[in-house]
Amino acid sequence: MSWQISEADLCSIATGAALLGTGGGGNPYLGLLRARELLRSGLRMQAVSPEGLPDDALVVCAGGMGAPVVSWEKLPRGEEEADAVRTLEEYLGRRAEAIAPLEMGGSNSLVALAVGAQLDVPVLDGDGMGRAFPELQMVTYLIYGGSPAPAAVTDEKGNRTLLSRVRDAYALERIARAVTIEYGGHAGLAMCPMTGTEARTRCVPGTLSLALRAGQAIEDARMGSRDPVEAVLKVTGSCRVFRGKIVDVERRLVSGFARGQTTLEGLGTHAGETVVVEFQNENLIARRDGEVLAVVPDLIALVDSDSAEPMTVEVLRYGFRVDVLLLPPSPVLTTTQALRFVGPRAFGYEVDYRPGQRL
Amino acid sequence: MSWQISEADLCSIATGAALLGTGGGGNPYLGLLRARELLRSGLRMQAVSPEGLPDDALVVCAGGMGAPVVSWEKLPRGEEEADAVRTLEEYLGRRAEAIAPLEMGGSNSLVALAVGAQLDVPVLDGDGMGRAFPELQMVTYLIYGGSPAPAAVTDEKGNRTLLSRVRDAYALERIARAVTIEYGGHAGLAMCPMTGTEARTRCVPGTLSLALRAGQAIEDARMGSRDPVEAVLKVTGSCRVFRGKIVDVERRLVSGFARGQTTLEGLGTHAGETVVVEFQNENLIARRDGEVLAVVPDLIALVDSDSAEPMTVEVLRYGFRVDVLLLPPSPVLTTTQALRFVGPRAFGYEVDYRPGQRL
Repeated sequence: MSWQISEADLCSIATGAALLGTGGGGNPYLGLLRARELLRSGLRMQAVSPEGLPDDALVVCAGGMGAPVVSWEKLPRGEEEADAVRTLEEYLGRRAEAIAPLEMGGSNSLVALAVGAQLDVPVLDGDGMGRAFPELQMVTYLIYGGSPAPAAVTDEKGNRTLLSRVRDAYALERIARAVTIEYGGHAGLAMCPMTGTEARTRCVPGTLSLALRAGQAIEDARMGSRDPVEAVLKVTGSCRVFRGKIVDVERRLVSGFARGQTTLEGLGTHAGETVVVEFQNENLIARRDGEVLAVVPDLIALVDSDSAEPMTVEVLRYGFRVDVLLLPPSPVLTTTQALRFVGPRAFGYEVDYRPGQRL
Repeated sequence: MSWQISEADLCSIATGAALLGTGGGGNPYLGLLRARELLRSGLRMQAVSPEGLPDDALVVCAGGMGAPVVSWEKLPRGEEEADAVRTLEEYLGRRAEAIAPLEMGGSNSLVALAVGAQLDVPVLDGDGMGRAFPELQMVTYLIYGGSPAPAAVTDEKGNRTLLSRVRDAYALERIARAVTIEYGGHAGLAMCPMTGTEARTRCVPGTLSLALRAGQAIEDARMGSRDPVEAVLKVTGSCRVFRGKIVDVERRLVSGFARGQTTLEGLGTHAGETVVVEFQNENLIARRDGEVLAVVPDLIALVDSDSAEPMTVEVLRYGFRVDVLLLPPSPVLTTTQALRFVGPRAFGYEVDYRPGQRL
């Protein structure tokens, strides 16, 4: 199945994907401007379900790489990711027939759609993280058997770097990160050239349409004067675990990542409680008064308490009233195989993963 | 013209090239062990004069990249540079027909010969620096019109990174350096695929045979109980500007480079004088009591006062008695075009280049 993406869809996807991005995946507003401009210039934007991919199609994963904080200050040119795909095409001697989103983040969902439009190929309704994650070895296309090479990293000045062989997914992450940092902290990335069959079995399916539905639910509730947070809880099957005010944000740009933590003081029924959310581009762990409330791969999203607008880490500031939502991760992320790469210990937290909703 | 390189030649080249390497270009002993092992395993090592290169041959520049201090602690596997050439060959769809040395340093002269043996192609009697320099934009193949892309950077674990497009030679340097640092501080490099005609007109010619003659002169003098330093002065047309004792070595590994300075206190006729030599992998500027004695692209070489053994920056230590020699740079390095890249100002020294010998 395939369908056209409209300008209204883009707005909804930007909002919904920023929610799934759990703080990372790039700024949704910038991603929206870029994708909308392409639609307005007359390009087509088409989504295709995993089942709709031809078995032998060449599918290439694409997205932006770098700290969200950087993309906010160093605007992309808009050709980086398409250039990365072209670099792989040149190396493989074959054109990509579909784009698979790297992650479902506020910007990266729309970047994938933009690349699809630029190259005139459909974009998979699914992605490689089912949310956003900070590092490349956390991509399900790799976790479930894809090769970490070749991959291409490009910048806005026309530099193209191809990783034609890498030892493993961790080497891919380290080398591509070093190049990204040298580029100035943001790069276009293309990786995991795969067949349609491989993309279908390795992706987190349906996340583009989930982002669309979540975004639409928020917008509909705002228009209908209903509670947008309640609407998003319902459509995503998530729960609200805290409501509070941001009283502190520590944010450092370290080794190409935005690292830090957000401290919330409880409001209403949560008065007197404190929640601290640690992030590395994405929110990784939330602790209430020192006890683990939720941890990766659970999706820990901070949204504005009134509008349900998802808050990416680069916009967090003192004084915002936010709800902390826990969204259930895709089962693709909670297998033993996947938890090795995206579980708490992969991020240095000495706790076992337990779904936050059941705490 | 082409000729075979013998095991005895390798020893002489190691010594002579370490002299031309002016402190950098890698440790000659390690390079010698590696190249000698290949000869002993039965591989052929052949040199070819610039005039002997077929006009349309594919010539690829190869060498090791990184701080000499690192290669001394992290031994290479020995396939890195050949792998880099193979990466370019794969990209270009064509086999290299000759190897052009990156620089004439203690290790990199022998590395080029090793790669030639590994790939069974001859090695150009000439190089891209006429000495050693720390950065890639200082390569004459680039200075005189070669394209900075494609280039390949590889490591001992089998990682291969191809820079398929770079904005300019400075971008090549920065991106390749970032990858080299991520690899652990040492990498194999292949760059500037060019025709035989281009290699002939862009190289510093005759430096491999110059290294061979200088090394042989030193060895012959040692065997004949003559002064090896006098012998090397004669064969290289250089002059001794100072004799002293190393009283201090400052050496830091900064951004992938060995940076620092060596302080010498004068002996004999130089008693009471102090010479400070600053280096970035290679010796860049020598000052006597604060006044510039010599500056790049002049070759500032430190050799053991008794044996004339050239001293690379990673072996400098308190107490060594050394002579400071000034070797004249190739005219290829002193054109207005070349001085933009390898003159004093390219290294941040606010002085004009004046040949040190005529001071």
